[in-house]
Amino acid sequence: MKEGEIYMEKKNVTFDDIAKFTGFSKTTISRFFNKPDSLTEKNQKIIKDALDKLGYQGQNQLARNLAKGKTEYIGVIIPNLYLHYFSHLLNNILQTYEEFGYKFMVFVEGENEEEEKQYIRELMSYQVEGLLMMSHQIPSASLAQLGIPVVGIEREDQFISSVNCDNYAGALEAVRLLESHHCDVYLHINTPTNVLTPAYQRIVGFQDYCDKHHLPNEVIVRSMGNEYGKILPVMTSLFDNIEAWYKGKKVGIFFADDTRANCFLNLLVRKYKTLPPNYKLVGFDDSPIATEAVYSLSTVGQKTEIIAREAVRMLIGEIRARKEAKNGQELSKPQHKVIMPALIKRESTELENKY
Amino acid sequence: MKEGEIYMEKKNVTFDDIAKFTGFSKTTISRFFNKPDSLTEKNQKIIKDALDKLGYQGQNQLARNLAKGKTEYIGVIIPNLYLHYFSHLLNNILQTYEEFGYKFMVFVEGENEEEEKQYIRELMSYQVEGLLMMSHQIPSASLAQLGIPVVGIEREDQFISSVNCDNYAGALEAVRLLESHHCDVYLHINTPTNVLTPAYQRIVGFQDYCDKHHLPNEVIVRSMGNEYGKILPVMTSLFDNIEAWYKGKKVGIFFADDTRANCFLNLLVRKYKTLPPNYKLVGFDDSPIATEAVYSLSTVGQKTEIIAREAVRMLIGEIRARKEAKNGQELSKPQHKVIMPALIKRESTELENKY
Repeated sequence: MKEGEIYMEKKNVTFDDIAKFTGFSKTTISRFFNKPDSLTEKNQKIIKDALDKLGYQGQNQLARNLAKGKTEYIGVIIPNLYLHYFSHLLNNILQTYEEFGYKFMVFVEGENEEEEKQYIRELMSYQVEGLLMMSHQIPSASLAQLGIPVVGIEREDQFISSVNCDNYAGALEAVRLLESHHCDVYLHINTPTNVLTPAYQRIVGFQDYCDKHHLPNEVIVRSMGNEYGKILPVMTSLFDNIEAWYKGKKVGIFFADDTRANCFLNLLVRKYKTLPPNYKLVGFDDSPIATEAVYSLSTVGQKTEIIAREAVRMLIGEIRARKEAKNGQELSKPQHKVIMPALIKRESTELENKY
Repeated sequence: MKEGEIYMEKKNVTFDDIAKFTGFSKTTISRFFNKPDSLTEKNQKIIKDALDKLGYQGQNQLARNLAKGKTEYIGVIIPNLYLHYFSHLLNNILQTYEEFGYKFMVFVEGENEEEEKQYIRELMSYQVEGLLMMSHQIPSASLAQLGIPVVGIEREDQFISSVNCDNYAGALEAVRLLESHHCDVYLHINTPTNVLTPAYQRIVGFQDYCDKHHLPNEVIVRSMGNEYGKILPVMTSLFDNIEAWYKGKKVGIFFADDTRANCFLNLLVRKYKTLPPNYKLVGFDDSPIATEAVYSLSTVGQKTEIIAREAVRMLIGEIRARKEAKNGQELSKPQHKVIMPALIKRESTELENKY
C-alpha cells in the first residue's frame, strides 16, 4: 500500500466477473458465498484468489453476512440530539463499536408514531439484527411484536428489555443532599411525566423520601417543553411564585434535569448577583451545562457510558440467544437492568461551605 | 394489520424456500432479484405473491439494492458529540432521511488515523455509497482516493468536496458588531488552528477587518482543549491578564466559539456580580449554551440545518453522477460550498442598551 492510501477498491465486481475470471458458473460463485462448504477446498481457494485479484476484498462482506442472516447492524432511534443527555448516550453507543464490532444505523425520532414505524420498516428491510429504542412514540407492546430483539433506554419498557438509570435511587440521593443542608421546605420541579417511563421514578423517589423523613415538600409539575427558550418564561413565573410563597425560608429544590436547574440558577444570580445561601439546587443528568453554569450545579450523574455499553451488550446477547433458540422454543422474558447513578456535589449546594 | 402491529416478519426465508414454494429453480429466484426483467411478467407476479405469502416482504430490500449496487447508505464519521455543534449537525443530517431517503451509518471519530481508516474499511465493506466526513484524522488527499464520493464539513477539504460555514464573513460580522460599541481594543481568543481548516478563516476575518478599519487588536491563541473543565483554568489565567493589561479600557472580544465565550462571561459575572458594560463578548456557533448562559451570548449563528441538508444533497449528487459516468470519463472536480451565517445580537453585547 502506498502511504496515505486506505485501500484500492475496484467497484462493481459482479458474480459475472468472478465467473468469467475463474471459469466457474455463476451458481457456483453464488454457492461460494452462501454455502462455501458445498465447494471443495481447492475450488474455494481458486475463488478466494480470484476475489483478491479482482479487488473484491471487503466488498462482499455485506453479501456474505446477509447470506448468514448476520449483518451486524443495530438500528437506533433516538430523540432529538439537542438534548445533551441523548447526544452523550448516542456518543457512547457508537463508541461500543470498538468493543463489539456492531455498526449503528441511526434515526432521529419521528413526529408521530406512523413516521417512526416507517423508520422501523426501513431498518428491518435493511436487516438490522436488533433495535435500541430511546424514543417514546411507539409503545413497547408493539415493539415486542417486531420479531427482532429490542432494548429500550429511558422509555416505557413493559414488554421489551431495557437498561435504565436507577432514577428512584438518584432521587433519594438528591433529596438526602438537600436535607443535609437543613432546608425549611423541599421542592421538586418537573414536567408532566408518563407514569410508565423510568424518569417518573424521580418524582416517586422524591415523595417517598420526603414522606419517610417527614420533610415539608411540594411537587410542582408544569408543562414547559425541553428547549431553554420555552423553559425560561415558565420557570420565571414559577421563580416569582416560589420567591413569594417561601419568603425568608431556606428552599431546597430537586429539578427534573440540569437544564431546568440552570434556568432557575440564572434567575437567582441575575436577581441576587450571586447564588444566595438560602437556596440549594440539585439537577439530574450531569449534562455539560452542569459544569458550564455560572455556578456549577450539583446533580445526579447518569452513567451514560455504562448505560450505553450495557444496552448494547444486552441487545447483542438477545440477538445471539434468538439465533441459537430452536424453532418454537420460548424466548426469554424481557430483562430490565438499572444502573446506579452517582451524586455529584458542586457549588449549587456547597457554595457557602467554600466561601 | 392488527392495531399496534408494525409488521410480522418470518425470519430466514431463503431462496430455497421461495424456489420450493413456487416450483421455480433457485437460479430463477436469483434472477428475479438481480434482473427481474429477464422473467415474464406472469412469473414475476408468481414470485412476488410467494414473497408476500412467505412473509418475505421488507426482508429483501437489502439484497435487491445490493444487487443494484444501491444500498442508499451513507457513512458518517463525526467528532465527539459532546461538542454541541456536532450533535446539532448530526441531528440535522439524520433528519434529511425524510427528504432524501438515505440512511446513515454513524461512527464517532477514532483516536488516531489508523482507527478511523478501519471505520472506513468497515463502512465500505458494507457498501456505503458515500461518506460525510467531519472528523480531522484522515487528510483529504487520502479520502479522495477511496473510490466513493466524500463530502467534508468544517474540516480540511483540499481534495474533497465540502460544505462549510462562511467563517470569514462570520468573523467580519462579529467584529463589526463589537466595533459598533466603540471598544478601545479588540481581541480574538482561539486555540491553535490548522490553517487548512475552514475555522481558521475566523482568525483571518478578524485580522483583516481590524487591519482595514485600523482597530487596535490582538489575537490570543492558547491550547485549552474542548471541554469546559480544561478550558476554565486556561481562561481564568487569560482573564486575569486581560483585566490587568486593559484596565479601564472598553474591551470587545470575539471568541472561537460559544463555550469559550460563556466561560469568560462566567468569570466576569462571578467577579463583578453582573456583566460589566466595559466588556462586549461575541461567540460563534449559536450552541445551546449561547441562550442557556446567565446572560445570553451574542454569537455568529451557523445554519447547521442548511449546512447538513446541502452536504447530503451534494453527496447524493456526486453518488448519482459517478454512477452515470462512463468508465474512464473524468469525474467532476471537488465542489466547495459556503453557507452564510447569521449574526445574533443578545445580552453579551446589548445589555446596557436594555437597562
